[in-house]
Amino acid sequence: MTTEHNRSDNDSGLNERHRTRMQRKKAVVDAKIAAATDVRGVLLVNTGNGKGKSSSGFGMVIRAMGHDMQVGVVQFIKGAIPTGEERFLRRFPEQCEFYVMGEGYTWETQDRTRDIEKAEAAWACARELLSDPSIGLVLLDELNIALKYHYLDVQTVLADLRARPAAQHVVITGRGAPPELIEAADTVTDMTLVKHAFSQGIQAQPGVEL
Amino acid sequence: MTTEHNRSDNDSGLNERHRTRMQRKKAVVDAKIAAATDVRGVLLVNTGNGKGKSSSGFGMVIRAMGHDMQVGVVQFIKGAIPTGEERFLRRFPEQCEFYVMGEGYTWETQDRTRDIEKAEAAWACARELLSDPSIGLVLLDELNIALKYHYLDVQTVLADLRARPAAQHVVITGRGAPPELIEAADTVTDMTLVKHAFSQGIQAQPGVEL
Repeated sequence: MTTEHNRSDNDSGLNERHRTRMQRKKAVVDAKIAAATDVRGVLLVNTGNGKGKSSSGFGMVIRAMGHDMQVGVVQFIKGAIPTGEERFLRRFPEQCEFYVMGEGYTWETQDRTRDIEKAEAAWACARELLSDPSIGLVLLDELNIALKYHYLDVQTVLADLRARPAAQHVVITGRGAPPELIEAADTVTDMTLVKHAFSQGIQAQPGVEL
Repeated sequence: MTTEHNRSDNDSGLNERHRTRMQRKKAVVDAKIAAATDVRGVLLVNTGNGKGKSSSGFGMVIRAMGHDMQVGVVQFIKGAIPTGEERFLRRFPEQCEFYVMGEGYTWETQDRTRDIEKAEAAWACARELLSDPSIGLVLLDELNIALKYHYLDVQTVLADLRARPAAQHVVITGRGAPPELIEAADTVTDMTLVKHAFSQGIQAQPGVEL
């Protein structure tokens, strides 16, 4: 009985402290929400060595599609292997324009001149999407790789991004985002590698990496 | 003429060095791929304070759906506001089971007892998916929050994860993943905040955060 009574007292104290803490937290969060009044297209960058850069971009693609927005995807590097996201999104040609412009990773092609030609063709395709106000969100998947290897000029890319429709969101992914792009972006996440199944001898698998 | 000639020499040297470097890189990558022979369901955790934890999980959901896998989603905390990803994925009830079990963030509900009841109901739902070998990938969105607040017992959660079908992939998202879960996971990414539009006065917007 005493134990029960004490536990109930403890629970009640814990619940009360929880409520007080959460009330304080809500006040802080609400103040931040009230201060965030700007509505415009945002530029997001996912970089770093960990998993989740492209997949987060594709999550935003379906988030936008759920709000009946038109979306566009350009893949700059991947494309040697057809991926699950490509197979899935090609089911919706009216809502999602999907362009695979890369031939694979740079260490697979080993041909810098050809990589540059491909990157320039991909950027021409991206520029079309970035000048179309009917497209609500554009995913430029692995663009950072093309910038990192100087296949594309970062100032040209930034100028085209600045010139895009005011309400259009853009997500750029890939390792090694250049400092100029990070500076220009509204939201930047570094997907930091804590550990990866691959390093533990587990194959890249459909639904996970492919 | 001389300038042209030099540039061509320079380009040729650059291209050759690029090829040599990429050949070395390919050898390293290929050796890693050859060493990664294990095929089994992996446990992935997306944690950290930056953007991209849930969206990466949803990107993996459509990646799996692109490979014609059956998928299941349980949202532990979000759910007060219908999101784009929910609206989108509910279009595919035959391929994606989608359960919104939370009532909103802990600082909104401010009711620990009720939060615990909701978390337990959500886990019962998750356990169904984790015991169904026809489900290829399970997304447990914001589960880390429920663990962080001790709404659920981490050892119970780990035991159910260990008991799942051998080929099933699981993605767990949310800030503050407990060390026991990180230890048990195959792939862990810390979505590290570099900057966020919200802190610069930009509202959470459909297609981006909602």
